[in-house]
Amino acid sequence: MAQYLEDLVVGEVCHFGHYEVTREDVIDFARKFDPQPFHLDDEAAAKTHFGRIAASGWHSGAMSMAMLVEHFNAVGHQGLGSPGIDELRWLKPVYPGDTLRLTWEVLEVTPSRSKPDRGSIRTRTEMFNQHDECVMRILARSMVARRV
Amino acid sequence: MAQYLEDLVVGEVCHFGHYEVTREDVIDFARKFDPQPFHLDDEAAAKTHFGRIAASGWHSGAMSMAMLVEHFNAVGHQGLGSPGIDELRWLKPVYPGDTLRLTWEVLEVTPSRSKPDRGSIRTRTEMFNQHDECVMRILARSMVARRV
Repeated sequence: MAQYLEDLVVGEVCHFGHYEVTREDVIDFARKFDPQPFHLDDEAAAKTHFGRIAASGWHSGAMSMAMLVEHFNAVGHQGLGSPGIDELRWLKPVYPGDTLRLTWEVLEVTPSRSKPDRGSIRTRTEMFNQHDECVMRILARSMVARRV
Repeated sequence: MAQYLEDLVVGEVCHFGHYEVTREDVIDFARKFDPQPFHLDDEAAAKTHFGRIAASGWHSGAMSMAMLVEHFNAVGHQGLGSPGIDELRWLKPVYPGDTLRLTWEVLEVTPSRSKPDRGSIRTRTEMFNQHDECVMRILARSMVARRV
């Protein structure tokens, strides 16, 4: 099974992923990459709008990627990497104990004009918690191989 | 020493950070969050435009955050978190063995109209490797406390 550029349908929304956020993972990630008090310490976080320890936004992005790649592997997605993100919004805090899932929608499919073996897509990824609140939204671009 | 909203100067560019990218860290991060072949396996990466194992883009973002927070701590930056990113571009691959640094520029400073104790900033963060190539550029927003 393989998913090439030609197999991606604009407007189709895929639902997938199940990611349990642990306190240990949140603190480990924050210690290594984002040691701000509200990611590490409950007392410090209580004084902010987070209320208690919340995951680093980069950790949220990385967790969404973990679910995305699991989905890509399941469908044989022929991804070639990404040139970037057009917009990312951290809409709600992600807390230890949360269970996350994704929706992923293809917004645009564009065959490359110079390279016949590939094309680019624009996508909207939304991450939801167990209360069905959207905690993060990402509009991204990526490259996908064509069935040549 | 503390850096509040009032202390941030539009147009000022700060240079800081020294981050050595190890092969072990690149593979560890990719295994956990982004297990695509070009982040894990030299042979698979050789068949792509990466040429060899390259860091996950989310790992690059996280490494930039590590340097940013180190700088924030050094200057006593009174950050309150970020609502999101307006644009992120992965311009060049980040490879094991690279040494990274940042430039950070404040583009806009806006006191909150509803909350007198804070405001928001827009920033441009650029990450460079040891060849002075810009490998990533991020336009972001964040909240900063005011000196009240």
